[in-house]
Amino acid sequence: MEVKTYKKDYDYSYSLGAFPTMELIKKKSDAVDKIIIHSSFDNQNVIDEIKSLVDNTRIFTNDKLVLKLSDKGNCFIIGVFNKYSSKLDENSDHLLLDNPSNMGNLGTIIRSSLGFGIKNIAIIKPGVDYFDPKVIRSSMGSIFSVNIEYFDSLEDYESKYPHHNIYSFMLQAKKNLRDETFSNKPVTLAFGNEATGLDMKYLNENSLIIKHSDEIDSLNVTNAVSIALYEYSLKL
Amino acid sequence: MEVKTYKKDYDYSYSLGAFPTMELIKKKSDAVDKIIIHSSFDNQNVIDEIKSLVDNTRIFTNDKLVLKLSDKGNCFIIGVFNKYSSKLDENSDHLLLDNPSNMGNLGTIIRSSLGFGIKNIAIIKPGVDYFDPKVIRSSMGSIFSVNIEYFDSLEDYESKYPHHNIYSFMLQAKKNLRDETFSNKPVTLAFGNEATGLDMKYLNENSLIIKHSDEIDSLNVTNAVSIALYEYSLKL
Repeated sequence: MEVKTYKKDYDYSYSLGAFPTMELIKKKSDAVDKIIIHSSFDNQNVIDEIKSLVDNTRIFTNDKLVLKLSDKGNCFIIGVFNKYSSKLDENSDHLLLDNPSNMGNLGTIIRSSLGFGIKNIAIIKPGVDYFDPKVIRSSMGSIFSVNIEYFDSLEDYESKYPHHNIYSFMLQAKKNLRDETFSNKPVTLAFGNEATGLDMKYLNENSLIIKHSDEIDSLNVTNAVSIALYEYSLKL
Repeated sequence: MEVKTYKKDYDYSYSLGAFPTMELIKKKSDAVDKIIIHSSFDNQNVIDEIKSLVDNTRIFTNDKLVLKLSDKGNCFIIGVFNKYSSKLDENSDHLLLDNPSNMGNLGTIIRSSLGFGIKNIAIIKPGVDYFDPKVIRSSMGSIFSVNIEYFDSLEDYESKYPHHNIYSFMLQAKKNLRDETFSNKPVTLAFGNEATGLDMKYLNENSLIIKHSDEIDSLNVTNAVSIALYEYSLKL
């Protein structure tokens, strides 16, 4: 059985840890290729649940492989899956991330997005590989419950989803998040790169700012996204 | 000139990078021991500003030392400082973190806290070392603008700051954050460990929940703190 340490051009990836792997099994069962369990894993409930959901010919014990694929020693279950593609739902609200560059941040954002009910995420290239195990891990497996689609540019996104109203979060915006009613549906909440934010081409009458003191330069992008999702979820 | 790679028991630490180091120089000038600049750093404005603020006998060029102290290659300025202690302001609002265990998270939380105007942070032990360069870096230097104090236990904190009203954020809470008026001042916004949350002893009539869908287990703690700080800042 050969599973190599992840590279972007492979047609498979894997979830590290019991919690993300259970999410994989429950939400993307068709994509599951194999489940690899370390022999020291002793949570019989989890093992029984896996055996009830996954064809048993796909379940293996292979300590060496678990150790090889997991960076940290505290991972005992790995779910190998075939990569799949998804399209965004054109009638639902979207989150848009322009050039997200940090894997941990992307995973955390996916988790918050699902937590506040937005299950369709556009990534404007360049952007990190959302199938990287680091993204999957920091998403806590929530990545298996959302649709993610890459776009070459903002224009590419707008041409494919022309009915969405883009609310771009920018320090240059005039309107406060709290004052926005989000009356034009469906909405796209847009956020820029960790270091550079959104390009000025995103600035329009729908642009929003999350007010903070001038003692800091900006909020961390994952925190800004979470605050926006929280506020938006209360106005639905 | 000897500066060793940071260890918790040293009486000094250091900021990595120009932005955090400028924060150190501006906000904690008395603590500055030396500034070390890589010879390839060519932002003359920053160099001039440093020279105008720091005694020039404390400014050094030492490429080998910069490379040794910085994990990544993209750091060109390091600010070595003597550790200092601070007490919380008893009349101001506090943020309380019980057993924060991730350095990057702690730094990000400090940055958000300053951004929303809370400059006094209590850490209930155990908790990571807030002077660790990883915390300073992820705080983007905002750590030099806040007071942080360790406490042995919640009881220790309460005995020292008996007039604070603790609002604990817990999944077991009944009251929604959005419905809370925070009428009892000063407030302490309390958050638990990344993996385990707050102990049940924190649960009281002031406990709050940030509502999210049941498709995720919980919000990432840095995001939960940011949402709470945002909501609280709007009710001041």
